[in-house]
Amino acid sequence: MTKEIVLTGITTTGIPHLGNYAGAIRPAIEASLRDDVESFLFLADYHALIKCHEPERVKESTKAIAATWLACGLNPDQVTFYRQSDIPEILELNWILTCVCAKGLMNRAHAYKALVQENVEGNEVDPDKGITMGLFAYPVLMSADILMFNAQKVPVGKDQIQHLEMARDIAGRFNHIFGQAFTLPEAVIEESSMILPGLDGRKMSKSYNNTIPLFETEKKLKKSINKIKTNLLEPGEPKDPDDSALFEIYSAFSTPEQIAEMRKAYEEGIAWGEAKKVVFEHINGQLAEKRERYNELMASPTYIEETLQAGAEKARARATPLLKKVKELTGITAIK
Amino acid sequence: MTKEIVLTGITTTGIPHLGNYAGAIRPAIEASLRDDVESFLFLADYHALIKCHEPERVKESTKAIAATWLACGLNPDQVTFYRQSDIPEILELNWILTCVCAKGLMNRAHAYKALVQENVEGNEVDPDKGITMGLFAYPVLMSADILMFNAQKVPVGKDQIQHLEMARDIAGRFNHIFGQAFTLPEAVIEESSMILPGLDGRKMSKSYNNTIPLFETEKKLKKSINKIKTNLLEPGEPKDPDDSALFEIYSAFSTPEQIAEMRKAYEEGIAWGEAKKVVFEHINGQLAEKRERYNELMASPTYIEETLQAGAEKARARATPLLKKVKELTGITAIK
Repeated sequence: MTKEIVLTGITTTGIPHLGNYAGAIRPAIEASLRDDVESFLFLADYHALIKCHEPERVKESTKAIAATWLACGLNPDQVTFYRQSDIPEILELNWILTCVCAKGLMNRAHAYKALVQENVEGNEVDPDKGITMGLFAYPVLMSADILMFNAQKVPVGKDQIQHLEMARDIAGRFNHIFGQAFTLPEAVIEESSMILPGLDGRKMSKSYNNTIPLFETEKKLKKSINKIKTNLLEPGEPKDPDDSALFEIYSAFSTPEQIAEMRKAYEEGIAWGEAKKVVFEHINGQLAEKRERYNELMASPTYIEETLQAGAEKARARATPLLKKVKELTGITAIK
Repeated sequence: MTKEIVLTGITTTGIPHLGNYAGAIRPAIEASLRDDVESFLFLADYHALIKCHEPERVKESTKAIAATWLACGLNPDQVTFYRQSDIPEILELNWILTCVCAKGLMNRAHAYKALVQENVEGNEVDPDKGITMGLFAYPVLMSADILMFNAQKVPVGKDQIQHLEMARDIAGRFNHIFGQAFTLPEAVIEESSMILPGLDGRKMSKSYNNTIPLFETEKKLKKSINKIKTNLLEPGEPKDPDDSALFEIYSAFSTPEQIAEMRKAYEEGIAWGEAKKVVFEHINGQLAEKRERYNELMASPTYIEETLQAGAEKARARATPLLKKVKELTGITAIK
């Protein structure tokens, strides 16, 4: 049985929060444990440079994300877990794909077009104001990330579907011009993937400043959960679970039975303070051990670095022969 | 005395002709022999992919150009002579620079704008029709080529001056955002650099199909020189040296004394057939030994390859520490 190759990248610009955990980290780790799947999981630090020109933030984020994934049960022996910048082959492939990618394809990228739209609406003389080539060419690098390992499945959010289409287009174009080298990857839109609400009820996101850091201290976690916005209903008054960020967050960490129980408690008028206490205990119970492991890992940078180096070795063992083949197809080869 | 770093790249899409020799190869080799200069000379095969999707052509060209430069006296012990694609650091740097390069800068590139203009004039719906990202992003890769070795001087034709300005802009932007890493390179426009006419009197260029290959056989060279366009003036009639492709080509291979002598012969009405014979003997005399060496080299691919590998090692010894520094400045570094 050949395993299906699944690839996931995490841009190293932030510190993981509860939303990242429930929406991305936990499902990716669960998937990586499946027997029929070969997982490639990488820290996308070269993507971080597109938007983040703060070296300290990139460094801290890289470390925290690596420690988080390991603390959450990622098994580096089972998964190929690496840092993008340790695989120079990806950057070589990026240039080769750049040479077969139509500029028009990038012109049509939603993310780029949205920025141009903003500039136009802001009456900027230059519609490209503030837009770097990194932002413009980002889908090519993402294609290289995927095609370098001939990944078949790439779990993505809806905003990334177009980028997967672009990766397919670029792969197809290369295969057509130079000969078969790449598998056309498919986007996997996790139907069940959750978007957690943040403290204010909007999507939990660093840009809204409404996140609950995944591995903040127990004390801080309690404080954060207490800050989740609720309404003014008194204890005893029935509360609507379907209009409650607290309920949604709780649900992301619960079995159907536990969810049903909490729904009942809402209907029976549980006090917000009491509900928050239950949610804290419940989530903290699931995170406490992982948090401890996270803190140990954060104190063991050498271990993390060695783990990433071992992952890079595994990844390069796959990338090197494919890049060699791709280069040969284009005429870039030893002199004979 | 610190040596000045001079960098020259040759795109590997063609077979060197007399015009390349007189205009680029000969002066670059002469310059490389100077004591106050450290020369970096490379086969730009990743640039070749921008326009050339013919693997065989890229392969043949890479081999022929390497053999030509070596046959013409390039000393690989004195010069750092390498193939671009053997230096993965350049492609990593290319991406880092991509992230600090404004898209607007590329929008203003003459070469790109000329293609858009052609599309607009041809009433194409998409002004970017047929334009790849490689063509659009080409000046970023060229910047990486230059900045990777902190080259101070880059000999260029007039059409490349803008690209050097772009390299300076990108280098300055990186230095400003992340801290000093790059020397700002300067274009050197060789005032004396010649543009040789081809068989039809227009600039000798592969695209006009009017070239005289540098190392074609003696017999073919004679034939080529006989094909150079002349006018209908009879033997004995005075001829104008300043309106003669033959005279220009001769001049590119001659001392001032030899040029004066030929000028006199023109004025005295030398027959075209006789003049062509003299020009052939003269040029062939300068090329014969080099041609022999070229043929030997073309029959020794292993030697060429080893020479390029040795060059890559020298180049990487310079590129690796600089890339490490650049990555560290951006926050891409080992976990500590």
